[in-house]
Amino acid sequence: MHLRKTFFALMALFAMNVHAEFKALPDQPPIPKDNPMTPEKIELGKMLFFDPRLSMDGTISCNSCHNVMFHGGDGRPVGAGIHGQRGGRGSPTVWNSAYLTVQFWDGRAASLEEQALGPLINSVEMGMTSHDLVINRIQQIPGYVQAFKRVFPNDKKPTIKNAAKAIAAYERTLITPNSPFDKYMKGNKKAMNAQQIRGMKLVDEIGCTSCHTGENFAGEGFKMGEGHYQPFPQIPGSKYDKMYDITSDLGRYEVTKKAEDKNHWRVPTWRNVAITAPYFHNGKVHTLDEAVRVMAKTQLGLDLKDKQVEDIVAFLNALTGEFPVQTMPMLPNTLNSTVTPNP
Amino acid sequence: MHLRKTFFALMALFAMNVHAEFKALPDQPPIPKDNPMTPEKIELGKMLFFDPRLSMDGTISCNSCHNVMFHGGDGRPVGAGIHGQRGGRGSPTVWNSAYLTVQFWDGRAASLEEQALGPLINSVEMGMTSHDLVINRIQQIPGYVQAFKRVFPNDKKPTIKNAAKAIAAYERTLITPNSPFDKYMKGNKKAMNAQQIRGMKLVDEIGCTSCHTGENFAGEGFKMGEGHYQPFPQIPGSKYDKMYDITSDLGRYEVTKKAEDKNHWRVPTWRNVAITAPYFHNGKVHTLDEAVRVMAKTQLGLDLKDKQVEDIVAFLNALTGEFPVQTMPMLPNTLNSTVTPNP
Repeated sequence: MHLRKTFFALMALFAMNVHAEFKALPDQPPIPKDNPMTPEKIELGKMLFFDPRLSMDGTISCNSCHNVMFHGGDGRPVGAGIHGQRGGRGSPTVWNSAYLTVQFWDGRAASLEEQALGPLINSVEMGMTSHDLVINRIQQIPGYVQAFKRVFPNDKKPTIKNAAKAIAAYERTLITPNSPFDKYMKGNKKAMNAQQIRGMKLVDEIGCTSCHTGENFAGEGFKMGEGHYQPFPQIPGSKYDKMYDITSDLGRYEVTKKAEDKNHWRVPTWRNVAITAPYFHNGKVHTLDEAVRVMAKTQLGLDLKDKQVEDIVAFLNALTGEFPVQTMPMLPNTLNSTVTPNP
Repeated sequence: MHLRKTFFALMALFAMNVHAEFKALPDQPPIPKDNPMTPEKIELGKMLFFDPRLSMDGTISCNSCHNVMFHGGDGRPVGAGIHGQRGGRGSPTVWNSAYLTVQFWDGRAASLEEQALGPLINSVEMGMTSHDLVINRIQQIPGYVQAFKRVFPNDKKPTIKNAAKAIAAYERTLITPNSPFDKYMKGNKKAMNAQQIRGMKLVDEIGCTSCHTGENFAGEGFKMGEGHYQPFPQIPGSKYDKMYDITSDLGRYEVTKKAEDKNHWRVPTWRNVAITAPYFHNGKVHTLDEAVRVMAKTQLGLDLKDKQVEDIVAFLNALTGEFPVQTMPMLPNTLNSTVTPNP
């Protein structure tokens, strides 16, 4: 533990000298070569994203937990699935998720395409019993069959892989540019107020940005092995471990089963963090100021003063971007029948 | 029962001679004098309509069951509320609900304003324990407080009555004009094909339009006492009563407790009926052709031939209107905290 502290202090020092790590959000996220963006694909993906018929009983869509009209999450501690079931973790915002290097809290999906496949067949989320059943539903909806043909002309019929590609393409349009921070970084020095600038300097000085690096503040610039993942708590034993049940979910370990991954997590983004309460993987921390206190203590061993917390919260509020206006998709219908006839 | 049959035959004859009962959808629904439409009010209503924070656990919005992006319903037999609970009846489409003379399957609300208040505090729907709690939530969301002030400048703070007014104003924008039938009625005689025209004549001849009258085909032109309500079944005793559990829900009687209201229901609209399966108050009939057979038998005592059913279904498909493209509302946020902190 002592070694860990020393390492972290060094990291913090390192961060202090490289303010260049602060980066504005690029206009476009990375786009994989095998899934180019087209307007038709994005529109298909939007329909699928909003369609509750992709859940077993027709009640839950991707948007139910990752609410594009809200702030990309659900404002709740953990996700809510079919039949009133609750997931074990909070729903990360879908806005700017295209900039993340790995998906899910534990990084178990390497891409948005891979991520999209999970909740569909998770029994406490959308609860479909198989991806084949998802495709079976889609095939019963003529508007989808036609749309898949237009978007993926080389495939005779809808496939789950193409459904995931379309959803991912839509998600890559969910970008919130022009936060006060971004404007500041692009030269408008009045875009952030004095308190926010103090907060920005402070997160750098005390070491927060050792992990919250890069344009998305989610460690995507962090290249030390599996550097996207960090232990939480970094320094176990504070009162917060119990208070907020921080350690019972083993995080990345549940994926790899490697001892060194216990309680490791993907570094979550700071973008729009002021509007995406509650906080942490289990959503047990309800306010941002408390989240800042918890992180300072559990990750850096620091007891922040109230004024420091206020300055950091002010800076984090400068990371709320602009949410572009979108049109609602109109979901394609089945004629004279329904694909979700069961209660 | 014999008298009933005779009465109905007379009604059918009456209907045959007044084809003028077929009416195109007016451009605007009735707008109450005490709730004029303004763009700001409509936008506020849209936000409230889509906001799951108006439910106890933050999972259910008006749109969850009355899905504007789908066809205004949920495609399911009965509504789904918080904690996986199921309602007893299907979710009627919100599109064109502004033309209905009474709301809910049993007509227990006289207006959209009154209707909007119900599901919020229904324990199996949005599950708020009181309207005061709804307002308490709204008051914690600064964007709403400001919007209420702008839209209702005479009231110092948000009220549940004004919330309902805003939601109703938004709902009055949900109109689907230009169905093939409407185009036909406005002079384009090629807008419906020969089969659809046969179906239109048939529903008139056999008496369906005795109840399904008016621009919304929902009995709104029907002025015989409480003529919006009709018994279902009109002629009890067919195999369908048991097959689809038609009689166990007593409908209008549950509101009035008058014996003569047993198994009476508001006449449902035919508009967009082809895309709003499943059918009837309990959603037990999954296909439109079966719904047509059931109605002919239980209401008119008729066993339709397959060709007749096909013609009627073709006509009902001509009543699918155009769904105007809408922009998504962006729900106002709380800063640094959430109003739905509980699982």
